[in-house]
Amino acid sequence: MIVISLPASLGIGEDLSSTLGLRHTYIIYKLFPDNESYIRLPVDIKGEDVILIQTTYPNQDKRLIELILAVDAAVSYGASSVSAVVPYLAYARQDKAFIKGEAVSIRALLRVLKNTGLDRIYVVDIHKEDALKFFGEGAYNIDPTPLFAKALKNHLHNPLVIAPDLGAEWRARSLATLLNTEYAVIKKHRNRITGEVSHKLPEDLSVYGRDVVIIDDIISTGGTIAGIAKHLRNLNARRIIVAASHGLFVSNALKKLELSGVNKIYILKTVEITQSNEFISVLDPAMLIADKLRETLHISSN
Amino acid sequence: MIVISLPASLGIGEDLSSTLGLRHTYIIYKLFPDNESYIRLPVDIKGEDVILIQTTYPNQDKRLIELILAVDAAVSYGASSVSAVVPYLAYARQDKAFIKGEAVSIRALLRVLKNTGLDRIYVVDIHKEDALKFFGEGAYNIDPTPLFAKALKNHLHNPLVIAPDLGAEWRARSLATLLNTEYAVIKKHRNRITGEVSHKLPEDLSVYGRDVVIIDDIISTGGTIAGIAKHLRNLNARRIIVAASHGLFVSNALKKLELSGVNKIYILKTVEITQSNEFISVLDPAMLIADKLRETLHISSN
Repeated sequence: MIVISLPASLGIGEDLSSTLGLRHTYIIYKLFPDNESYIRLPVDIKGEDVILIQTTYPNQDKRLIELILAVDAAVSYGASSVSAVVPYLAYARQDKAFIKGEAVSIRALLRVLKNTGLDRIYVVDIHKEDALKFFGEGAYNIDPTPLFAKALKNHLHNPLVIAPDLGAEWRARSLATLLNTEYAVIKKHRNRITGEVSHKLPEDLSVYGRDVVIIDDIISTGGTIAGIAKHLRNLNARRIIVAASHGLFVSNALKKLELSGVNKIYILKTVEITQSNEFISVLDPAMLIADKLRETLHISSN
Repeated sequence: MIVISLPASLGIGEDLSSTLGLRHTYIIYKLFPDNESYIRLPVDIKGEDVILIQTTYPNQDKRLIELILAVDAAVSYGASSVSAVVPYLAYARQDKAFIKGEAVSIRALLRVLKNTGLDRIYVVDIHKEDALKFFGEGAYNIDPTPLFAKALKNHLHNPLVIAPDLGAEWRARSLATLLNTEYAVIKKHRNRITGEVSHKLPEDLSVYGRDVVIIDDIISTGGTIAGIAKHLRNLNARRIIVAASHGLFVSNALKKLELSGVNKIYILKTVEITQSNEFISVLDPAMLIADKLRETLHISSN
């Protein structure tokens, strides 16, 4: 079994291979002058179980094409099996046709990877776990809530966990259970005249003087979470903490979150973090990924 | 039958549909704030033969992913058949493993398109026609030489057509036949001590006072053609003309070609041309593509 880091591996390949006692190498990679990617396997992988590591943000499309090329190469050189660890899988929010005629992007891409010969895919906190059905057998979601719980426990005062919408409810439930506290789901309200979106907690719930943790999968522009944070601030929450798996932080998202009253953000190292300061804590998901690989690939502990 | 232009269609979809008497529409397209592409079919295509138009330069990876998403959408909404016109198909030069372990990029990508449900693909002047075997049945290459011949004939003095290497020989032969003249293949010589590459015409061939046409498929950095042009200039060619299908013109390629002694460049409208001046003539391949579609899809002339 060999772990091969692709161009956007975030150093996770090294952590995984040392934790799991597996060989590790980097793919040979370059960009041609016209910006085409070049991929070469650096060692003979014939008969080996290969684990590729590549995240898909930023440059989602390029990272996906490189992953496709690497899977094709591994299959054609005779790998016994090919698995991919994709800490952040792009295009996962387009998991159904919200309007007739829409491409179901994550369906198309998971099928492409499967048809290219990928046997297993490991994704950290995919937007909706149900989307993994498009890959079929061998698709695994890695639940991030134990990492957030570990970072947060013993630091919270009378905590409440908040899910921004029903789709994120499972995350709030899981984190609340680990923190031995309660959770609630925010209700989104769209004013039918102005079109303005507002966020409301259930009426009977007080956040006054409490530490509130908003948990979600992706922070893109930060608009949704900023809106909720403002609402919580108005209700006199004590501290507002955000726990989100994937910090894309498009344009001024971080500034927006800071101004909305968020005190602290926890994210995972699943994408390249270019904006970093004491406002953000970055948690490493390598151990959770290692556990899932060990469990599903039957790697013995060492 | 309906022609659908994707984001990088170069206006070819409109030309094709009016020439062939087919319906035409644009795909609904946007970029999400995090730079993911969104693709939606604007009309019901159930039971229709769909022809998608998308080139793949610049932003090769994004354009390829968008094409994959559009094919997936067309298939899943019940298109009777799906064809794609890809005026420039990226990654075609990586058509074999030059070194063991390399991804054969064009094999991987053509298989992906086939597996996504694409029935036919039409490519203008692919680097090596043989690479279309990776798609299997339904892959068509469009020979650009008639367009170049039409633009050049009656403007040349005692012409000679030159292929920069053996892989481009068929292009030189075809153009020379259409121009009713002779052709030659350049010999590349690498100095084993300095590593410097030089280009040599066959010894017995004189270019003195002749118009020389260098024909090739892709101009990327322009290095190869500039080297040949310098050689021809030293041999006192009268005019040096370049006929190349795909003008990628990476960084200062155009300047390099002008300085090397090239008098004029003819390229096709197969990629977005951002650098344009009187040094370059852009030829429209829409009629050649229309002919190939008519012939293979049995569209009646009107």
